[in-house]
Amino acid sequence: MATGNEPTTVLATPNIALVKYWGRRDSRLNLPTNSSISITLGEGLSTRTSVLLTNRIRNDTLYINGERHRLGTAKDEKFFYIGRVLDELKRMDGTKKRMLVVTENNYPTGAGLASSAAGAAALIHAASEALGLNLDAKEMSRVARLVSGSGCRSLFGGFAIWHMGKEADGRDSYAEQLYAPEHWPDIVDIVAIVDRGRKPVSTSEGHERTRASSNLYKYRADHAEERSMRLMDALKHRDFESMAHITMRDSNSMHACCLDSYPPINYLNDDSVRIMRAVHMLNDAHGEMVAAYTFDAGPNAHVITTRRNAERVMAALKDSLGKRAELMLLGQGSGPRILGAKESLIDMERLRPVAHE
Amino acid sequence: MATGNEPTTVLATPNIALVKYWGRRDSRLNLPTNSSISITLGEGLSTRTSVLLTNRIRNDTLYINGERHRLGTAKDEKFFYIGRVLDELKRMDGTKKRMLVVTENNYPTGAGLASSAAGAAALIHAASEALGLNLDAKEMSRVARLVSGSGCRSLFGGFAIWHMGKEADGRDSYAEQLYAPEHWPDIVDIVAIVDRGRKPVSTSEGHERTRASSNLYKYRADHAEERSMRLMDALKHRDFESMAHITMRDSNSMHACCLDSYPPINYLNDDSVRIMRAVHMLNDAHGEMVAAYTFDAGPNAHVITTRRNAERVMAALKDSLGKRAELMLLGQGSGPRILGAKESLIDMERLRPVAHE
Repeated sequence: MATGNEPTTVLATPNIALVKYWGRRDSRLNLPTNSSISITLGEGLSTRTSVLLTNRIRNDTLYINGERHRLGTAKDEKFFYIGRVLDELKRMDGTKKRMLVVTENNYPTGAGLASSAAGAAALIHAASEALGLNLDAKEMSRVARLVSGSGCRSLFGGFAIWHMGKEADGRDSYAEQLYAPEHWPDIVDIVAIVDRGRKPVSTSEGHERTRASSNLYKYRADHAEERSMRLMDALKHRDFESMAHITMRDSNSMHACCLDSYPPINYLNDDSVRIMRAVHMLNDAHGEMVAAYTFDAGPNAHVITTRRNAERVMAALKDSLGKRAELMLLGQGSGPRILGAKESLIDMERLRPVAHE
Repeated sequence: MATGNEPTTVLATPNIALVKYWGRRDSRLNLPTNSSISITLGEGLSTRTSVLLTNRIRNDTLYINGERHRLGTAKDEKFFYIGRVLDELKRMDGTKKRMLVVTENNYPTGAGLASSAAGAAALIHAASEALGLNLDAKEMSRVARLVSGSGCRSLFGGFAIWHMGKEADGRDSYAEQLYAPEHWPDIVDIVAIVDRGRKPVSTSEGHERTRASSNLYKYRADHAEERSMRLMDALKHRDFESMAHITMRDSNSMHACCLDSYPPINYLNDDSVRIMRAVHMLNDAHGEMVAAYTFDAGPNAHVITTRRNAERVMAALKDSLGKRAELMLLGQGSGPRILGAKESLIDMERLRPVAHE
């Protein structure tokens, strides 16, 4: 609604998929080959994005972590997919103003910590709000999907599902909330950061290479879709045992398909494997599932557990990793929220990011 | 023919499969789900085995690297499968004597360097010789297969194929030579030992866990059988490009199925991944294939290349691994050979392994 001269600022958080999005049936529209289900994380990791509509700049402009990028719609521009989407939103609104976007992560970008998902959710929420478009959540998720596939899930708190859809134009490929955090508040995520570097193969390149070259991948989609259906059931009944089993198997299946690609993609490292072994040993020792690991496109782990068991899981991870790992305990997030003017990232005098302290 | 009182001693070498044996349709008879093709390696890595038929000991006895094991045929004995096979060979011969077997590897056992394959080939060759059974090579390979599946290929020099066969009793599942080393003498193998420890999951357990639990594995067999057929063609035409491509893809497919098993099996480590990347970079830099990696059930690499390129491949591996790796350049082996009495491992006075210097 704030179509005036003030920036709109939104904070969003990454999500961690328990059944993953890997491989696309349409790479321009980010249409997946299976439905995916995730937990939106609490605010320990977050992305803040401010959007301003203004006549005072010449071109649509994007600052990511202080670095300036021109937002074009030409295919050779680095962020053309964002430019294209914002252009479309502006067309819906009819405005002729330029858009200034400033976004910052409080954690490493490109390290497999879903910075692009949180970024897409914050951007689309803020842009839609700045333009006063009144998009509903389903429509917003479709637009966020175009920027970053898994970003569509970060528009919802708690547990979210991204329906794969069947239509060629993607109109039935959107996300929605399955359960608010209150449904199963005991569930938490321990993020184990073992490597803060950028991943050697980007998520986008990984999707494409796996689809184009892995023989085994052709068979993953069916299993993954079936896992999504079983996971919905497990979440409904708060069945930790089933959820943990499905989560670990799906993560392993995705990374198996990466390894089967050509040239092979190895996101996991020795510390990732140490975490996997520690979790299996812990579960074996307890005679029941107390934790489940899952890895996105990088070596850093998300270990899903319950508040009750979080301390002993963290102790086991520390034992297996020593001082190498940074552990962070996160609850479930409530989805994006609009911040006040004081938290804006835009210096209105200079129309640039506010000075970093 | 030496059925007298002298031990028979045979030296055999490991083989490295370019299309791998992984997963069995019958685990008692070691019947595979696809045909496999390997290179028998030169004598840098080797197993020596002495067999003596004697009335001077009470039970069939096996020494492995100096450690004594009783050779029973009961299922709970550690080496019952060897006991069973030797029992069968003795029955064919009609002898009532006991068998003393002494075997030694000149390299680490259980580190994914195919010690069991070389051991099975040396044992069956030596036992058959000691008993004077005159088994032909095909028959010997069927017997070696019962001891260690991939062992049946180590009975032949150069390139060997193990036909998967279709019969339930395994009579058509045997190995034979495809080409002697002279067919393509330029081909060599650089063994990169990055870890001398025992693998965390034995080959036998790995086979079984993958078959029982991996979803993706069900689809590997078809691809692997087809790769074997294409590899035969590549070997016939000395087509390094195709051989290299098939070899790397098959190795990655096997390890992908391991990762997809439950609990997952991770044989590769960070050094393995460094080697994989170094080989891809080298091939890219040359604009053609000059090397191909392949990994058995462990992190140690075999890098197949040509004599012409061996030096630059070794330099690239050293660059990527630093001092961690021990590299060994091996040519193709000629298959098992009988050694003279001086090289026997049996101290005839004490009927024990000769004292180690």
